[in-house]
Amino acid sequence: MEKIVFICLILCLSAVTEARPAKDELLVEKQTFTTQEFALFNGEVLPEVKVGWESYGKLNTDKSNVILITHYFTGTSHAAGKYHPDDPAPGYWDAIIGPGKAIDTNKFFVISVDSLANLNVFDENVVTTGPASINPATNKPWGTDFPVVTIRDFVNIQKAVLQSLGIDSLHAVIGPSMGSMQALDWAAAYPEMVERVISVIGSGESDAWTTALLEQWTIPIKLDAKWNNGHYSLNDIPKAGLTAALMLITQQALTPEFFNNQGKQLNYMPLESAPLNSIASSHSIVDWLRQRAAARAENMDPNSLLYLARACQLYVAGHDNSLAKGLKKVTAPSLFLPSSSDLLLMPYLADSPNQQLGQSSKLLTLEGQLGHLEGVLNIQQHAKTITTFLTHPVR
Amino acid sequence: MEKIVFICLILCLSAVTEARPAKDELLVEKQTFTTQEFALFNGEVLPEVKVGWESYGKLNTDKSNVILITHYFTGTSHAAGKYHPDDPAPGYWDAIIGPGKAIDTNKFFVISVDSLANLNVFDENVVTTGPASINPATNKPWGTDFPVVTIRDFVNIQKAVLQSLGIDSLHAVIGPSMGSMQALDWAAAYPEMVERVISVIGSGESDAWTTALLEQWTIPIKLDAKWNNGHYSLNDIPKAGLTAALMLITQQALTPEFFNNQGKQLNYMPLESAPLNSIASSHSIVDWLRQRAAARAENMDPNSLLYLARACQLYVAGHDNSLAKGLKKVTAPSLFLPSSSDLLLMPYLADSPNQQLGQSSKLLTLEGQLGHLEGVLNIQQHAKTITTFLTHPVR
Repeated sequence: MEKIVFICLILCLSAVTEARPAKDELLVEKQTFTTQEFALFNGEVLPEVKVGWESYGKLNTDKSNVILITHYFTGTSHAAGKYHPDDPAPGYWDAIIGPGKAIDTNKFFVISVDSLANLNVFDENVVTTGPASINPATNKPWGTDFPVVTIRDFVNIQKAVLQSLGIDSLHAVIGPSMGSMQALDWAAAYPEMVERVISVIGSGESDAWTTALLEQWTIPIKLDAKWNNGHYSLNDIPKAGLTAALMLITQQALTPEFFNNQGKQLNYMPLESAPLNSIASSHSIVDWLRQRAAARAENMDPNSLLYLARACQLYVAGHDNSLAKGLKKVTAPSLFLPSSSDLLLMPYLADSPNQQLGQSSKLLTLEGQLGHLEGVLNIQQHAKTITTFLTHPVR
Repeated sequence: MEKIVFICLILCLSAVTEARPAKDELLVEKQTFTTQEFALFNGEVLPEVKVGWESYGKLNTDKSNVILITHYFTGTSHAAGKYHPDDPAPGYWDAIIGPGKAIDTNKFFVISVDSLANLNVFDENVVTTGPASINPATNKPWGTDFPVVTIRDFVNIQKAVLQSLGIDSLHAVIGPSMGSMQALDWAAAYPEMVERVISVIGSGESDAWTTALLEQWTIPIKLDAKWNNGHYSLNDIPKAGLTAALMLITQQALTPEFFNNQGKQLNYMPLESAPLNSIASSHSIVDWLRQRAAARAENMDPNSLLYLARACQLYVAGHDNSLAKGLKKVTAPSLFLPSSSDLLLMPYLADSPNQQLGQSSKLLTLEGQLGHLEGVLNIQQHAKTITTFLTHPVR
């Protein structure tokens, strides 16, 4: 559910990008989809929904070459390419999406859609409808009057975007983390449309452990006095609570190995002088974590984080309160790629649906020390697995 | 760093206690130790320190049969026995401390001391000096004017208590979690006094990962508007922040298996109706976690949690900013008992000092699904290991 653009990783990704001939660079443009009277899974109706989307590659004549990419918790529809040649980094899965890459945009029309209640509301390239949008009934931001939205609603918006383009089948749906929830729910909700599913660092449902863990992310926001039960001015948002939430998310998405390597770079020591002498001071590793979180918070809306966490808590593939029932509806072959070092959505969460799906499903693990983030930052280690799976014959 | 008195576990422990003949029941009494002008590790001086202590068994004539038990983060010196025969549960390690038990009070004089800044300030059986104590300079609670304290300071207070009883050697120092930090620091600080060390669910130092994780516990408290930079009235403490901190601590000290078993008892489902229909409602598992945390918060002081977290963050055995240097001072044989399912202080944190200590050290794991809490609630699985280790000849 996480992407952290660490300086080293940016440099690394930039280096890769720069090494590639400029002609191979994807340049992408954000599109906007609008619909009215959008019925939500819980029965509420949104008067208007606007979401952003972007695509890579060309739609073929019979519209049979579509791959939908569903994004993670703190992500957006910017899965690959750059908006401008001088962007510091491309979309998060640029390592596997592009001409000649694992998800080959010379063959496939790859499309991705911003979620409802997208966290990055203040990013100029994000278009979303959520608690920070204007409630037409009051002409003020919805705040916590916004209805609860679910993973199924994200799926249904994506379906509406696809229908607007005349697309009625998907060669594959692929997503990491919260994106994996959308991918598997797609296959359970609309099996006739989904030919293949890849769940990266994913799960079949949110178990009691995961639901409690997601709640922990929301608590700092609700404790921030500026939150005001969700009715704050967008000019004065509860940033301290949001930063605290991101500190927790960041740590849970990573590993001791990562933090201890970072600690070495900071010359971290347990007995640092500042925290030894003042309860108001903190250790170098804490300062580092807080600074990263505060920088990430810049484009984000705290209420939106509450709504995304709730959507994830309510998730069970098929949205019928029984994973077994939901998975029975799945006809697409599926591939699960959990990360063996993941402390956030541990590998057992992918094992369970993989086993229940039986012979039509397979599971391979991502290996490395980035924990949950292996699925975002190191997905290319399974580039060949993905390419092979995309040629998997449809039954 | 954790003890959660789950109803089932209370019943379980009570059943064990009731099955034992009444004559075997330890009845214990809290004692108070007071000292003046207590110099802290960071150079500050506390005008007065009062701490509670309790003991089980009898001190022999040459005072050579003393075992010191050092308590965990949310714990107190109440390691075994009951204050009154009708107490609902005995001290936390009653399963291994008592007549004929692993730490046999027919042989040993077992003693335990409340930490400085003990979390359970409002427990009538706890005596501690910390941010909730009165600052003689202002006649108000110290709040965050209280100086930073360290694990070494806890050790030094224990040493002063022992000296007041004429004790100058310890057959063993044994503690879980934060208690393990005190135990190993004892062996590095006063090797001539310590004959054996047992570190349960412990570590040699707080690495960058652990220090960041401990910080996460403190953040909700500091976000609570009632915290007021640590200067709140003890009649109106920031309970929401404290409850949030305890929700996080509770989850980190346990495991998915535990939460999912608890979820079954609650009929937890991802698509529960209340959270589906209102962003202000929460899932059954979240309500359960919040209620448990709020109940635990009753006797606790939020500022004290900040000070205990800081003491743990600053921990490196020997308190010399080099674990290798600290461990070189240790002459006592040592036994490490990490829990294989621990997500809070993961087993690697015990592996490291165990390996550095070489032949004089050994490590065995606690097995089970309670994570960190295996070391508090299921320590009896290594009862024999402990008894055998306590007969280990001193070199």
